[in-house]
Amino acid sequence: LAGEPPSFVYVPELGTAGSRVALSPDEAHYLARVCRARVGDVVRATDGRGAIARLRIASLDREASAEVESVERGARVRRARVWCGPPDGERADWLIEKLAELGVEIFQPLECERGKWTRAAERLERWRRLSIAALRQSHRRFLMEIREPLGIEAGLGELPRECSRSLASMGGRPPGGAGHSEGLWVGAIGPAGGFTHAESTSLEAARFVPMCLSDGRLRTETAALAWAAWWAAGGQ
Amino acid sequence: LAGEPPSFVYVPELGTAGSRVALSPDEAHYLARVCRARVGDVVRATDGRGAIARLRIASLDREASAEVESVERGARVRRARVWCGPPDGERADWLIEKLAELGVEIFQPLECERGKWTRAAERLERWRRLSIAALRQSHRRFLMEIREPLGIEAGLGELPRECSRSLASMGGRPPGGAGHSEGLWVGAIGPAGGFTHAESTSLEAARFVPMCLSDGRLRTETAALAWAAWWAAGGQ
Repeated sequence: LAGEPPSFVYVPELGTAGSRVALSPDEAHYLARVCRARVGDVVRATDGRGAIARLRIASLDREASAEVESVERGARVRRARVWCGPPDGERADWLIEKLAELGVEIFQPLECERGKWTRAAERLERWRRLSIAALRQSHRRFLMEIREPLGIEAGLGELPRECSRSLASMGGRPPGGAGHSEGLWVGAIGPAGGFTHAESTSLEAARFVPMCLSDGRLRTETAALAWAAWWAAGGQ
Repeated sequence: LAGEPPSFVYVPELGTAGSRVALSPDEAHYLARVCRARVGDVVRATDGRGAIARLRIASLDREASAEVESVERGARVRRARVWCGPPDGERADWLIEKLAELGVEIFQPLECERGKWTRAAERLERWRRLSIAALRQSHRRFLMEIREPLGIEAGLGELPRECSRSLASMGGRPPGGAGHSEGLWVGAIGPAGGFTHAESTSLEAARFVPMCLSDGRLRTETAALAWAAWWAAGGQ
């Protein structure tokens, strides 16, 4: 926004106006090297949970810190979760970045018959870093949460009753443009080898509506992104 | 589609039913190693210009070839061009792949005040290979064309008079869902540093309508993809 300080960082504990907050080594490095900010500069920060603060940098040394000048909070009005089977190779990395940029609330890796998430622990760590980087990049106030992989039945068990559900499927109907701006949306995308018939049937029985996102076959990560882009374009 | 041979290759000169066509070393390697196809198998092929053929593999050796069993042609009913300023680093690579999967007709790199396409010649070569790989992956009948970089004024000069034009912009209106299924659509996306005021003004004067694709800031490649996904979801 015009007139806003251009630098934007992630500070999980923002405190209140007048307090002093510590900056992590990552954020201090980002401010000093990428934003070329200096002591005394005013920057913006989010706690990733809805607050945005104006901070005045007090130090960028080993014990980097800033004074909180003001804090304001916003509520999340639009919410989307992506349930996603594993794509090929390391394609999940950029998918995470893009979904976070688009404002998805939760990324839920889905264990499927035809695809298991391997090395989940180390990848979760990396994905959380990518999610923070995308938060800074997109100047958002909510950090995308990345959950541990879950099977479809377990996922269905913890889904809120009231939500709109899409299943990416070439056999589905085109999404249309209206009516997806409010409430929680969940999009389920199969692994590189696709959902099995049994899995699709379970999802459809749980009110996941087949949605055709393109007139060609999409890779897992492309379908996940296309669904999120469709959702993001739907209401602002 | 059920019952179709699963392997799908790119053969620029398909000939007619009954003729024999050469398979490039790339396609022969893809058939033998990725699809695990053998001599005598039936596969599908496209010429990237609307034709899809059934081929019976005659040889996968150095002079690989196939017999054309049948050919059918389809017309392109939906058309999209992406005009895109340079994103950061090598992010154009995956953007090309995703736009091709989504069925974009032409990728037009755009030279901008705040971003020039560097090493264009070598990258065009690479992007054309990525476009072919995405064609095979998505089983499409049209190859995405990748043009040489062009300035905005030159691009405007060669644009068909009748087309719908979008300009990705946080200050624009949400796209809505209806009415983008037919005819040619052109989406203009600024470079990593954004269009200058003068560039945006030129584009708007040329009937590019500002469109807001997300409620957060998007990177160049994310905005290009979000626009293409919105377009792809619009009509099938």
